[in-house]
Amino acid sequence: MKYSFKNDYSEGCHPSILEALLRTNSSQQNGYGLDDYCAEAEKLILEKSKSPHSKVHFVSGGTQANLLVISAILRPHESVVSATTGHIFTNEAGAIEATGHKVHGVETSDGKLKPEDIQKVLDVHTNVPHQLKQKLVYISNSTEIGTIYTKKELEDLSNFCKEKNLYLFMDGARLGHALTAESNDVTLEDVAKFTDVFYLGGTKNGALLGEAIIINRQNLQEEFGFHIKQKGAMLAKGRLLGIQFQELMKDDLYWDLAKHANLQAEKIKEAFQEIGADFLAETDTNQIFPILENSQIEKLSEQFDFYVWKKIDSEKSAIRIITSWATYGAVVDNFCNEILKLK
Amino acid sequence: MKYSFKNDYSEGCHPSILEALLRTNSSQQNGYGLDDYCAEAEKLILEKSKSPHSKVHFVSGGTQANLLVISAILRPHESVVSATTGHIFTNEAGAIEATGHKVHGVETSDGKLKPEDIQKVLDVHTNVPHQLKQKLVYISNSTEIGTIYTKKELEDLSNFCKEKNLYLFMDGARLGHALTAESNDVTLEDVAKFTDVFYLGGTKNGALLGEAIIINRQNLQEEFGFHIKQKGAMLAKGRLLGIQFQELMKDDLYWDLAKHANLQAEKIKEAFQEIGADFLAETDTNQIFPILENSQIEKLSEQFDFYVWKKIDSEKSAIRIITSWATYGAVVDNFCNEILKLK
Amino acid sequence: MKYSFKNDYSEGCHPSILEALLRTNSSQQNGYGLDDYCAEAEKLILEKSKSPHSKVHFVSGGTQANLLVISAILRPHESVVSATTGHIFTNEAGAIEATGHKVHGVETSDGKLKPEDIQKVLDVHTNVPHQLKQKLVYISNSTEIGTIYTKKELEDLSNFCKEKNLYLFMDGARLGHALTAESNDVTLEDVAKFTDVFYLGGTKNGALLGEAIIINRQNLQEEFGFHIKQKGAMLAKGRLLGIQFQELMKDDLYWDLAKHANLQAEKIKEAFQEIGADFLAETDTNQIFPILENSQIEKLSEQFDFYVWKKIDSEKSAIRIITSWATYGAVVDNFCNEILKLK
Amino acid sequence: MKYSFKNDYSEGCHPSILEALLRTNSSQQNGYGLDDYCAEAEKLILEKSKSPHSKVHFVSGGTQANLLVISAILRPHESVVSATTGHIFTNEAGAIEATGHKVHGVETSDGKLKPEDIQKVLDVHTNVPHQLKQKLVYISNSTEIGTIYTKKELEDLSNFCKEKNLYLFMDGARLGHALTAESNDVTLEDVAKFTDVFYLGGTKNGALLGEAIIINRQNLQEEFGFHIKQKGAMLAKGRLLGIQFQELMKDDLYWDLAKHANLQAEKIKEAFQEIGADFLAETDTNQIFPILENSQIEKLSEQFDFYVWKKIDSEKSAIRIITSWATYGAVVDNFCNEILKLK
Repeated sequence: MKYSFKNDYSEGCHPSILEALLRTNSSQQNGYGLDDYCAEAEKLILEKSKSPHSKVHFVSGGTQANLLVISAILRPHESVVSATTGHIFTNEAGAIEATGHKVHGVETSDGKLKPEDIQKVLDVHTNVPHQLKQKLVYISNSTEIGTIYTKKELEDLSNFCKEKNLYLFMDGARLGHALTAESNDVTLEDVAKFTDVFYLGGTKNGALLGEAIIINRQNLQEEFGFHIKQKGAMLAKGRLLGIQFQELMKDDLYWDLAKHANLQAEKIKEAFQEIGADFLAETDTNQIFPILENSQIEKLSEQFDFYVWKKIDSEKSAIRIITSWATYGAVVDNFCNEILKLK
Repeated sequence: MKYSFKNDYSEGCHPSILEALLRTNSSQQNGYGLDDYCAEAEKLILEKSKSPHSKVHFVSGGTQANLLVISAILRPHESVVSATTGHIFTNEAGAIEATGHKVHGVETSDGKLKPEDIQKVLDVHTNVPHQLKQKLVYISNSTEIGTIYTKKELEDLSNFCKEKNLYLFMDGARLGHALTAESNDVTLEDVAKFTDVFYLGGTKNGALLGEAIIINRQNLQEEFGFHIKQKGAMLAKGRLLGIQFQELMKDDLYWDLAKHANLQAEKIKEAFQEIGADFLAETDTNQIFPILENSQIEKLSEQFDFYVWKKIDSEKSAIRIITSWATYGAVVDNFCNEILKLK
Repeated sequence: MKYSFKNDYSEGCHPSILEALLRTNSSQQNGYGLDDYCAEAEKLILEKSKSPHSKVHFVSGGTQANLLVISAILRPHESVVSATTGHIFTNEAGAIEATGHKVHGVETSDGKLKPEDIQKVLDVHTNVPHQLKQKLVYISNSTEIGTIYTKKELEDLSNFCKEKNLYLFMDGARLGHALTAESNDVTLEDVAKFTDVFYLGGTKNGALLGEAIIINRQNLQEEFGFHIKQKGAMLAKGRLLGIQFQELMKDDLYWDLAKHANLQAEKIKEAFQEIGADFLAETDTNQIFPILENSQIEKLSEQFDFYVWKKIDSEKSAIRIITSWATYGAVVDNFCNEILKLK
Repeated sequence: MKYSFKNDYSEGCHPSILEALLRTNSSQQNGYGLDDYCAEAEKLILEKSKSPHSKVHFVSGGTQANLLVISAILRPHESVVSATTGHIFTNEAGAIEATGHKVHGVETSDGKLKPEDIQKVLDVHTNVPHQLKQKLVYISNSTEIGTIYTKKELEDLSNFCKEKNLYLFMDGARLGHALTAESNDVTLEDVAKFTDVFYLGGTKNGALLGEAIIINRQNLQEEFGFHIKQKGAMLAKGRLLGIQFQELMKDDLYWDLAKHANLQAEKIKEAFQEIGADFLAETDTNQIFPILENSQIEKLSEQFDFYVWKKIDSEKSAIRIITSWATYGAVVDNFCNEILKLK
């Protein structure tokens, strides 16, 4: 079977997590996230984000986190602004609209929203009450195309949102990869400071499942549990999520796993640079999008599995290579060798 | 710490499941339920239910399964009929109404719906189009108060629903306990034959999480995946659910675990009978509701944890005792001894 | 053709309204309720209700008013309490649930909610966050079975709601008939004082269409226009509603029309009392529910049209007689004569 | 007061309608659209559209018609495609999304959708079930910028939709103006033939309120009444809508009124052409968008009221002039004189 670089959720979970599940298995615990592990995991997260007044809730996946947060925050006549590459815009089967809210899509060059992008949406929605009221800005870090926000960009966005009375929500399905990228200058503390809500993704960084939603703004914390239950997102055995995040957070395992993934991607990127390939976007997280000749793609896919992402012209396409906490260094070395042969 | 009989999801999962997670951990698989384990688990379930044309989908929990199935089936002007004890009626934070549908509640003596109960709802909703159109009947087996349907009751209900053009949906969060109860005469094949949709609960019978939704009616199978994704119920690592149900289904582990739980409850029930206690409902699954004097309740709760379920009068209350796949026989023996001392 | 006592919206509108429509027809006005007539009608209503800080919005009908107010007020996890006879409970095709909210139905003897009825609902919904949070109480005055609230009852309800942090909303589709009933001791000022939101029905009291929603609680007034637009309830020619309410409110036409309807019902009630008929409910508004022998019903329906409302036993049924602003006194006299012949 | 060319709903209604309301006022009729006038109006419409198997429903306004039709047709995972200028995209306060459905917006040069525009949306939504299923195409005729579809364009769109299994829905708020435009080659029969659902707007063509929804596709006709009721769109006195459409449809009043509006716009357009003005779009219905110098706009607005629609550069803006059935010829002559003075 071919080795797959198709995504970062192809394997099970980091062995420490399995060990923790074994170790805790027979302990009797309260249901619905009221167990000791969830409490401890929340404590660890808030220590690391230095935001002691934030609240943490654990849910199963990214789409669930997105629809939960957005529908809990917005009133019926309020809408959300997203990049058109944003996961909520076209990749969640209308999950946000199904809760009654419009997503305004903004075209961007790099998957990142800037104040001027949002201002453009505000400018064409001034005809009250015939047009919706924008109330929330959705960003992803790293973005769906692998790019990351700088501290300056985040701060500007945060200031803009405060000024315009907008909430700022960060999808952190791959926040580990963003914050451990070589070019990154943002800390977890910054994220907690500059956003009203964000989440730390477990599914794509070593957990079997799970995202940790961190609500920083106090007025948004109230009664959030009702929404979790109502949307079918409250696990009877919430311990499953608490145990995993406890494991990921202690001793910085979470960041180590992300760093590993980024490093593997970096090695592969260098191999593609070596043979002169261009890239769809400039990234230093665990997703890269090299542009290859069709014959090169064919050759590579004899031994490896990956997505052909976007047709460039009749002779070239961009492919997507994703690495993860589970990607073997030896396989990457082998892959790089095959890439170099394409020259 | 006191031993808890509060619910059947206090512990982790059956050890075989942990072993299977370990064994399969490094295998690369497709995401979103398209992995080998889900395929195999579906095959095992359909073999056992002898319904080869049914389709199986795995989701995280019971509320999620309920809202998914009901909202996928109903059009906006259609409603669902449930017993007032039904989980969807008051215990899911309005999950069904949040998808736009009314739940008509019917008072019952034993938690079970009969054709005449449903007919009463139909009789007061004839003013088309000012009143809703009832289209789906929701039942639980075992019910929320531990009772079970007989084959005759299920068949009658099924015939009635067909005649009235209603769909029949069974919440099987505790279906294992129902089908292995001593008084049960229903098979899994019967369930597949008499319902349009049902689910097999994993969370309350040895899994970390997971319910297997089985859609028997073919016109309801189409495009169900969209709804799973839209409601945030599609796990990236669907393998987690497939692996667990594969483990539970092979070698009849699922039924053995439920039988174990029922047997422990039976032993406890007999102890209560021995001291002359009455019961809120006649049950032979893993939930019992003995009625005790307040002083007896106080005494018992010194060593054991359980819910006081319902005040009967100033001197007596019913308590709820739940056993599970994980309940230790030795603890039950000890508990029974303490009960006998209450005489 | 038989004369109909089936409802109070069988005819067009009061002639003064048609005259006003003619008189104003060619005046150019702003759309969407921003016209001079709506402004003037709001002013008249707030003068009469002595609530200068309330806000008024005009919409087309009762179901629209109900769904608008309820969905604008409630957050997703909040629910509404209503009598089971309440119009929203089973007579609006699930309009409230379609906006995502559960309606808790309470059985009552007379269609009126009392604090203890609501308390019973609160008592069985304490399991946070698994159960919904009740946030709004819906009452109708006059009720769907013709009864009315006393000032004491309204005040008690208002105090109870404030104490429990619940909003109180009054459906006033027939508020004119309630406030002009002989036994009434409630003023429009009382209604504005004791409720958070209420509406004055036009459709059933002389208008072609239209209900005036009055929002008394200031925090509920904000951004209400968005909801009107979003639910398709904002008329381009809002003037149509403003003109009608201006006409109904000036010179007390609204109250005179309701009084007329009540008086006709009273005459008919007396005729039925004369022949010894019992009634389903004790009412002195424009709806009466006499219980007749089947042969009497048959006889009466030779010349008159009305609904047979409820079967009492094999020999008797209750019928519903509704009078309106348009009911001719001469027809009523004739009807009474026919009733007296039934003796 | 200045004469207003701001919109086509500034006045009341055509005098014939007021006369009909007077004439029919005291007739007792069934409620909820089951009156004689609605029946007769439906008959007249279906005769003129030569579609005897279609069904007609009357509702109050355009946003209401749009949200009703779209939410009644689509299942939860289905979406609608619209031009970004389409009324549903940004001018209805999120009415469509509030019913749970996404609107995909397509940029166009002239407000009209072509098969290739829709194909582009289909092309980027192939990742089943992670992306939505497009199921309905929404078009307006005339469009929101005054342009109209040719018969060829409509036929192509219809064929494309059938081929792709999409429904075609036409917003006809200004269908009268479209079908009576000088360059038009489409008949009402064509509209009924090429669309699955469309509506005939009354509000903007002489009625007090009202749109006639015509459902051509038989499978979409079933149970539509439930949706009307549930969305609060069913008038108790449906006669108000029936009487108006009966009046508009008999003797072709509807088309005459639209022709009058178009003719006035044509005269104004010619005056602007005379002074060398450019236009934002080429139109021959009742909306025109001349581009003027700011000083010219200032001059004109001394005597007349209209919207400044779009800034072109620092010196020029486009204005919007709308005429209607009620626009006086003499005022138009005066307006044209003032325009000619701008030269």
